[in-house]
Amino acid sequence: MSLFLFVNFEKTYEMRIPELSDIQSAYARIKPFIHYTPVLTSRQLNDHFECELFFKCENFQKVGAFKFRGATNAVLLLSPEERERGVVTHSSGNHAAALALAARMNGVRANIVMPDNAPAVKKNAVAGYGADITFCKPTQQAREDTTHMIMERTGSTLVHPYDNFNVICGQGTAAFELMEEKNDLELIIAPIGGGGLMSGTSACAKGINKKIQVIGAEPANADDAYRSFTTGSLHPSLNPLTVADGLLTSLSELTFSIIRSNVDAIYTVKEESILECMLLVWERMKIIIEPSSATVLAVVKENPGVFRGRKTGLIISGGNVDFRNLPF
Amino acid sequence: MSLFLFVNFEKTYEMRIPELSDIQSAYARIKPFIHYTPVLTSRQLNDHFECELFFKCENFQKVGAFKFRGATNAVLLLSPEERERGVVTHSSGNHAAALALAARMNGVRANIVMPDNAPAVKKNAVAGYGADITFCKPTQQAREDTTHMIMERTGSTLVHPYDNFNVICGQGTAAFELMEEKNDLELIIAPIGGGGLMSGTSACAKGINKKIQVIGAEPANADDAYRSFTTGSLHPSLNPLTVADGLLTSLSELTFSIIRSNVDAIYTVKEESILECMLLVWERMKIIIEPSSATVLAVVKENPGVFRGRKTGLIISGGNVDFRNLPF
Repeated sequence: MSLFLFVNFEKTYEMRIPELSDIQSAYARIKPFIHYTPVLTSRQLNDHFECELFFKCENFQKVGAFKFRGATNAVLLLSPEERERGVVTHSSGNHAAALALAARMNGVRANIVMPDNAPAVKKNAVAGYGADITFCKPTQQAREDTTHMIMERTGSTLVHPYDNFNVICGQGTAAFELMEEKNDLELIIAPIGGGGLMSGTSACAKGINKKIQVIGAEPANADDAYRSFTTGSLHPSLNPLTVADGLLTSLSELTFSIIRSNVDAIYTVKEESILECMLLVWERMKIIIEPSSATVLAVVKENPGVFRGRKTGLIISGGNVDFRNLPF
Repeated sequence: MSLFLFVNFEKTYEMRIPELSDIQSAYARIKPFIHYTPVLTSRQLNDHFECELFFKCENFQKVGAFKFRGATNAVLLLSPEERERGVVTHSSGNHAAALALAARMNGVRANIVMPDNAPAVKKNAVAGYGADITFCKPTQQAREDTTHMIMERTGSTLVHPYDNFNVICGQGTAAFELMEEKNDLELIIAPIGGGGLMSGTSACAKGINKKIQVIGAEPANADDAYRSFTTGSLHPSLNPLTVADGLLTSLSELTFSIIRSNVDAIYTVKEESILECMLLVWERMKIIIEPSSATVLAVVKENPGVFRGRKTGLIISGGNVDFRNLPF
């Protein structure tokens, strides 16, 4: 276990690899607020892929994504003074909605920085959870500047989507529920975007069972984690172009260090595999999963020899899809 | 209870109103073959409609629809001689797939008569379950003639999609599971096409609890059951034009007689309500339901005063949707 400190935005963050006890503490904390999501199986898909698959369905989580776990843990760990001053984040995706709802459920003000070209449906979702929205130009610089400005003006606490120890511990609780319910998994797969879910999942899985194989799923068209993992040094995501719109972001130093310690392999998958597997789950299981979630099944599809005859847990990250603009 | 006989295709059918004991016998018979489907709730939808909704999810049933229950019951009640000679039906929808699978699971040959313009995806589904397919011209006359021809040639037994006592008793087992699990429902709603599901549901519901209100949901654009119910005489479905493609068929004498005895009200719903409610379930519950299933929620939406504050069971009939040709 490594322990060091990381200063960012004039605040001191914990930057270490979570222990199982950190995930367990997070779970005890957030349990009254989250949905216990089901673990689904499909005989048809098991036959199709010749293995035993266990889908942990975070598409049924509040706000339709695992992100609600991490955001809730971060909000619950605010000091009374921090609660008073509110939280802030920049996101146009699931984390924005998750932080907005987690804050509202705890009487905390949330300010979400969104690019002004974000789809109306996402703006409405965040506004519907009662958050204040600050629009900015759709550039990384504008997002960071606007976030800084809000932090300085309001004293609010940044809850980063993944570069945050408390968020990571919250995300790990999905794997915790899965492995408590299904205690003989041989492998577990989660998607990798910024690495928050993968960090929490891997820390939890290895904490419960050192022998379990922990695998990351990443689109070949957004393979920064794969490149970082195989070369041993952090590579940013360059012009990612994938249907898995939740996986465009780059690892942080923190998530990279956790993933290097706990993940056994990262597999990249083709765009057509992602679409094929998304459609397969919609058709056969009758549940809605977003493209980012389909990457985990795409790993199984593209690497049959690794999974044949084995019990594999799949973290289905979310189910937020724009039905009027489907990729197939 | 009325009891009379109905001669069709040189075979004698039972034509009476099912008792609860008929549904219970069917349930004991088919239980080893079917999925026990979940009853889902959604706090968001309850808040939205200001009532308590319990969704019996037959979209998770084998072949993606409640039809598997009735088809299985019919196959299991064949005599040894009938099993030998096989079964036949005409359908391009969920009943075709249901009968094909129910027959295969019991070592019985199935012949499905389909119009030659049926979508490839439906032909493939039925062929995938191992049934023989006989194509015919897409007219009612051609379907009946072809079915007769197969019956004469092979001696196989017709398993009609809904004009069949055993099929109706099988369909009623979805409501049976729902009411066993949730025993304080005040109302129950099912969609009406040919009336098989509504017949089984109403017979079961009134058999368990005489006071429960049993409601049928029908597209206004395919309102033959509504017209028959309100006028007291059987009206056929004339040029039905609805997105709810499972509800185009007309009641039979048998289903009409059962519905008249046991159903309290039939509500018709607008096309835009069906689409709005389908999308609402996809977005909020992250499950895939077909347009026919959305009619039951559309009844709640269009008649808020009837349901406000009350516990209502909704039979979600299926989840088979062509994702490349969505109605929204």
